[in-house]
Amino acid sequence: MPVPEAIAAAMRQTNELFNTEVGGRHNIAALDKIYTAGARILPPGAPMIEGREAIKAFWTQAVAAMDPASVTLASVHAEQAGDGVVEIGKAEIGMKDGSVVTVKYVVHWKVEDGAWKWDTDIWNMNQ
Amino acid sequence: MPVPEAIAAAMRQTNELFNTEVGGRHNIAALDKIYTAGARILPPGAPMIEGREAIKAFWTQAVAAMDPASVTLASVHAEQAGDGVVEIGKAEIGMKDGSVVTVKYVVHWKVEDGAWKWDTDIWNMNQ
Repeated sequence: MPVPEAIAAAMRQTNELFNTEVGGRHNIAALDKIYTAGARILPPGAPMIEGREAIKAFWTQAVAAMDPASVTLASVHAEQAGDGVVEIGKAEIGMKDGSVVTVKYVVHWKVEDGAWKWDTDIWNMNQ
Repeated sequence: MPVPEAIAAAMRQTNELFNTEVGGRHNIAALDKIYTAGARILPPGAPMIEGREAIKAFWTQAVAAMDPASVTLASVHAEQAGDGVVEIGKAEIGMKDGSVVTVKYVVHWKVEDGAWKWDTDIWNMNQ
């Protein structure tokens, strides 16, 4: 089922928060508004990580290591799945040397405290 | 929502088909019973691939390149999501030299022609 525009708009708001706060400002605290408390991430090169606090620790390290200039998330395909949404997306990570790293991902979105958040997040690189 | 046992059993049957036919016998035709016609895969090191025929071409190459001795899929977490299931899983790929490659994945399962199949499939490595 396609995602109603009101939900798609709420999802864009969460993604925009990730782009500006995490990608741009390296503000890890913003992840409280992006991941559910019980979220799971499956990063390349590391085992699955469960729970928002552990996820924040992961991103603290990852953002420090990668030091991105910008992140831009874009939805490629999204469909409603019960109370949630399953989304395929693309991230473009702008590096400070001007290069761009392209990442593709699948996110299972859920509503927590009235906000659309990432409950499962897995990604990999095209190259 | 947890996955009812009847659905979990049907999912195990599909995974077992992948293990024995694709992982063990390198029988790519079995993917007709594993992926939906419109499925999407997001493999590490390649762009997203859409449609079962293109997916079969991918696995033909991947199985020939990797030449696995065995594949064992195991469910780590699964929940109902509308008409489908979102599953986190782990694959152990046994190589002919005795080494094991561990892969983690997220699959969005759907019913097609009465069978539980993979509609979205993304994976990456722990190392």
